[in-house]
Amino acid sequence: MKLLRYGPIGQENHGIMDENGDIRCLSSIVPDINGDTLSSQLGKIRATDLSSLPVVSSDVRYGACVGKVGKFLCVGLNYADHAAESGMPIPAEPEIFTKATSAICGPNDHVVQPKNSDKLDWEVELAIVIGKHSSYITEQQAEDHIAGYCVCNDVSERTFQLEKGSQWDKGKGCDTFGPIGPWLVTSDEVNDPNNLSMWLEVNGKRFQNGNTNTMVFKPAFIVSYLSQFMSLQPGDIISTGTPPGVGLGQTPPLYLKPGDKMSLSIEGLGEQHQTVVECAK
Amino acid sequence: MKLLRYGPIGQENHGIMDENGDIRCLSSIVPDINGDTLSSQLGKIRATDLSSLPVVSSDVRYGACVGKVGKFLCVGLNYADHAAESGMPIPAEPEIFTKATSAICGPNDHVVQPKNSDKLDWEVELAIVIGKHSSYITEQQAEDHIAGYCVCNDVSERTFQLEKGSQWDKGKGCDTFGPIGPWLVTSDEVNDPNNLSMWLEVNGKRFQNGNTNTMVFKPAFIVSYLSQFMSLQPGDIISTGTPPGVGLGQTPPLYLKPGDKMSLSIEGLGEQHQTVVECAK
Repeated sequence: MKLLRYGPIGQENHGIMDENGDIRCLSSIVPDINGDTLSSQLGKIRATDLSSLPVVSSDVRYGACVGKVGKFLCVGLNYADHAAESGMPIPAEPEIFTKATSAICGPNDHVVQPKNSDKLDWEVELAIVIGKHSSYITEQQAEDHIAGYCVCNDVSERTFQLEKGSQWDKGKGCDTFGPIGPWLVTSDEVNDPNNLSMWLEVNGKRFQNGNTNTMVFKPAFIVSYLSQFMSLQPGDIISTGTPPGVGLGQTPPLYLKPGDKMSLSIEGLGEQHQTVVECAK
Repeated sequence: MKLLRYGPIGQENHGIMDENGDIRCLSSIVPDINGDTLSSQLGKIRATDLSSLPVVSSDVRYGACVGKVGKFLCVGLNYADHAAESGMPIPAEPEIFTKATSAICGPNDHVVQPKNSDKLDWEVELAIVIGKHSSYITEQQAEDHIAGYCVCNDVSERTFQLEKGSQWDKGKGCDTFGPIGPWLVTSDEVNDPNNLSMWLEVNGKRFQNGNTNTMVFKPAFIVSYLSQFMSLQPGDIISTGTPPGVGLGQTPPLYLKPGDKMSLSIEGLGEQHQTVVECAK
């Protein structure tokens, strides 16, 4: 199933994309696409005859495909070539940092360049959406705890991330730095999360062209690993790192400026399109 | 006002401590002590005759004093002497990391030592509770954006924090690593947040004995600073760092084990009492 949320910012409704590519409204079936629904009501959606549900206009704004996200965790340097271009060693175990949940936005919303930002960068990433409470689970159990996957642009400000202390969170959690979607694709429809092609273009030029098969740590391992440190709740999102080709890795480095357009996609998970805009504040 | 939440884990009700030290139930006045209430309904509580509200038994469990926390941010190394005992330089600007919101627990709940933990440590901290949406606010504006303050024990696992990568969040966000409370004391009742004595004892021995007047970065500055990177929402919590005397700073280092009892307090903000227990999983 391709689950999604649509409508004005902060007032999103929710739906499902049917086999014809039409959005069907799910508001009569479940209260939202969030942790509660993912943990207990996917069966109810599955049992619904989608043709009985109202069709939603195709030109709606897409919201983040998951609502009420409790934690938005990330794995850093999870592609060997990206670690190399960042001038950092491949971690011996997953490097974990946190994006602020207030950074989450729709897949095609504008990305706001923060005030005082001079190194705004992109990162196409496969994001895991948790479907079950997870604490000390094994890698084998982990697959059953993953509700699905979606595209995430782990937008980053390198000055804030790398030049203002040792911890990265300041450069990762700015508002609009977490476009999520367009869809949450449930695990049963993702053939092999460890073999998905992915790309990102800026102003039509392809900068990232990777595949999840070069990840250092795979999704099931990451979920099991994280669950050794903290419990994961349904609706939590874990973004799993980016392949090579970010702005920081160009020679010379190349950063985003207002007016730039990003497009990104992961095989089977849809596309995102964002325009960078100046901070109006 | 001393606002609080009480009752079984996950089913907390909410109340206020009156001038006699009795808990009065607030469920007929506001829906919870959370961001919505802090941003718009404190006046309603203030206008209430507390003697008209039901008294709650004094032996209830205290929950975290704020519900539905969106972000749980922390300032690292914010006391010069603590930076020295940790063998780290005083940061030029606030060092920001994130605790998982799933780590939040009541002020007197057990602290669970995670599996594979061998360096479990304590940190008494003054926590700021945000009362208004904050984006690019000045230090002068910040005071008006702070709903109040509470005690936080920034429980930390030093192996997870410092020996498994460069980012600290793995050692900060374990379940039960964020006791918050007993009360959220509203700003109007905190005379000077920059001059509050604070202490922490383990098994009756005092290890931390500090005052917020030795903070490198003060609360109003921290809120203004953070708001330059990300918006803050009502109900967000920012823990502001710990004075010297943590286990890591002892010679030799001394860490917590099951059965150990922590007590901690900040002037005017109440006391916390936690027992360390083994992970049952």
